[in-house]
Amino acid sequence: MNKKTTIYDIAEKLNITAATVSRALNGNTKISEATRKLVNDTAKEMNYEQNKLALALKSGKSFNIGVIVPRIDSNFFASVIRGIEEELYPHGYHVIICQTHDQENLEIENINSLLNAQVDGILMSISNAKLETSEHFQKLLRKGVPLIFFDRKKDIPGVSSVTIDDFKGAYDATKHLINQGCKRIAHLSNNREMQIFKNRYLGYKQALIDSGIEFDESIVIETMSKVLEGRKTTKLLLNMNYPPDAIFSSSDFTALGAIEEIKAHGLKIPEDVSVVGFSNEPFTRFMELSITSVDQSPIEMGRIAAKVFLEEANNSKKIKSEKRVVLSPELIIRDSSLKLKN
Amino acid sequence: MNKKTTIYDIAEKLNITAATVSRALNGNTKISEATRKLVNDTAKEMNYEQNKLALALKSGKSFNIGVIVPRIDSNFFASVIRGIEEELYPHGYHVIICQTHDQENLEIENINSLLNAQVDGILMSISNAKLETSEHFQKLLRKGVPLIFFDRKKDIPGVSSVTIDDFKGAYDATKHLINQGCKRIAHLSNNREMQIFKNRYLGYKQALIDSGIEFDESIVIETMSKVLEGRKTTKLLLNMNYPPDAIFSSSDFTALGAIEEIKAHGLKIPEDVSVVGFSNEPFTRFMELSITSVDQSPIEMGRIAAKVFLEEANNSKKIKSEKRVVLSPELIIRDSSLKLKN
Repeated sequence: MNKKTTIYDIAEKLNITAATVSRALNGNTKISEATRKLVNDTAKEMNYEQNKLALALKSGKSFNIGVIVPRIDSNFFASVIRGIEEELYPHGYHVIICQTHDQENLEIENINSLLNAQVDGILMSISNAKLETSEHFQKLLRKGVPLIFFDRKKDIPGVSSVTIDDFKGAYDATKHLINQGCKRIAHLSNNREMQIFKNRYLGYKQALIDSGIEFDESIVIETMSKVLEGRKTTKLLLNMNYPPDAIFSSSDFTALGAIEEIKAHGLKIPEDVSVVGFSNEPFTRFMELSITSVDQSPIEMGRIAAKVFLEEANNSKKIKSEKRVVLSPELIIRDSSLKLKN
Repeated sequence: MNKKTTIYDIAEKLNITAATVSRALNGNTKISEATRKLVNDTAKEMNYEQNKLALALKSGKSFNIGVIVPRIDSNFFASVIRGIEEELYPHGYHVIICQTHDQENLEIENINSLLNAQVDGILMSISNAKLETSEHFQKLLRKGVPLIFFDRKKDIPGVSSVTIDDFKGAYDATKHLINQGCKRIAHLSNNREMQIFKNRYLGYKQALIDSGIEFDESIVIETMSKVLEGRKTTKLLLNMNYPPDAIFSSSDFTALGAIEEIKAHGLKIPEDVSVVGFSNEPFTRFMELSITSVDQSPIEMGRIAAKVFLEEANNSKKIKSEKRVVLSPELIIRDSSLKLKN
């Protein structure tokens, strides 16, 4: 191996001090732009490799950003992460990812692991757990590590968030089912202590009320975002004395389970029972019977969350501000709910 | 905020030295088990929170493990990661994930980011890039950071790996198509500088030869593991003068594209053209026309890769050993290739 180029070699070549070289490489504005350019060009020429850890210790920055999601095997979260990466990478940041599997203890431990890994900020979607404490979030704030929520969030003063208008997404989906002639629309809900699921429930309810359809709590069922759970819940619904003629699901996975169960009962989709999901997972499009769903523009969500982080990272730590960005969802109408083809 | 409990507080309470407390908390076997238990119980009682970073600096361990995959939005890689997490978590390790998007520069940068984050080891599936150098892997070896490959690997002395028998998976899949009466079987391949794709190609070829079917290079096409690429490539195949009656794809995503294209040509599956994919992604099962595929037992693969890491981490750094584990794949036969129903 060749001997590694050091800042002393660069200093010697340019006949300036090593301290000046170091400052120039770290972009210190006390050094003239001309000198900074000269040092950087020379460093490149001499194959100088900056010790990133040393740089991190000096600047207090690691240029690693932690992203915490409930699960990585969902197109929605994977796409948000893609958006974050696309936005942060040109700024020299790398993204490291942890998943919580919706377990509260893992959420806390992931935050600690990322702090130990010296990340410069954490962008996260909180776990599904019915968590009272927000001590682990407060810890980040006390340490001055920017925290940004996306999609699943908690209201904490000083913490920015990027979400979609879940109320509107659910409202539009339910209105669409009503316009297609559905009269008894069930709702597969999820843990409503999470704002996203609460807002989807409220949007669904409001659309019924606005259309003069009686709201019936008995056909709103809380379930987990899993195919099998969707099947089980739909079985309950179809075996009722007065079964629904449509299902609006707060998840594409439960919507898929609903479709399997409706077919197993020998019923036709959308004629007998219409189905609408939420998230626009790719499989909703690939299915032979494609599934109507609500698109949440996840890449855009990731990009914006990253931009909010960059703003906060560049702010003086003395300024505390928070930003709440709400994106508008889009209903994508497909076979599973399109009864009236004109 | 309350004053934090320190090891000195615990030492004072138990009337032992702080050094003994520290050693006991770090599980040093020079301290009797009784003392270790006493110290740990007291620490818990006093709400002592171990400073993990300090512990990391002292023990040289961060208890963070880096996992690098080409993409997280594939059920295969997500499941391998799940297996790694399940195996490592009870040992106190946390998993942090990076993705390369099959870009060589990101592979190198991810390794550097994880090194800066002080990970205790890296488990990875290499990117698709046709990379000559293995300098970034050598760097890990020189630093004594265990490196374990899973699925997509490079042969490097001293580096352990966990893979599946791709040759056998492809051989079985092709044999199955032959047994179903297919006579002209095309192969959607991928970058064959990667061992997994080379071995799938060789398994396919050998099955043809063993069955006395002429091998025709013109119906072996290299493509990327994407639905749209599968469509494009299949279009080429179907427009040939002598089109195939079956497609064995090295990826479920291209198999899905193939199915879409075959249908678009008004042909029947499996009667006119049979299709077999590779990886057993969940959508292959969910499709109305379910897709035959090769299961790679990814959770098992992750668990074993994690076990190999634990062995290496507990080995003296003076012992260099490598382990090459090869799992056996399983062909899952479904609608897309089942012509003979008996």
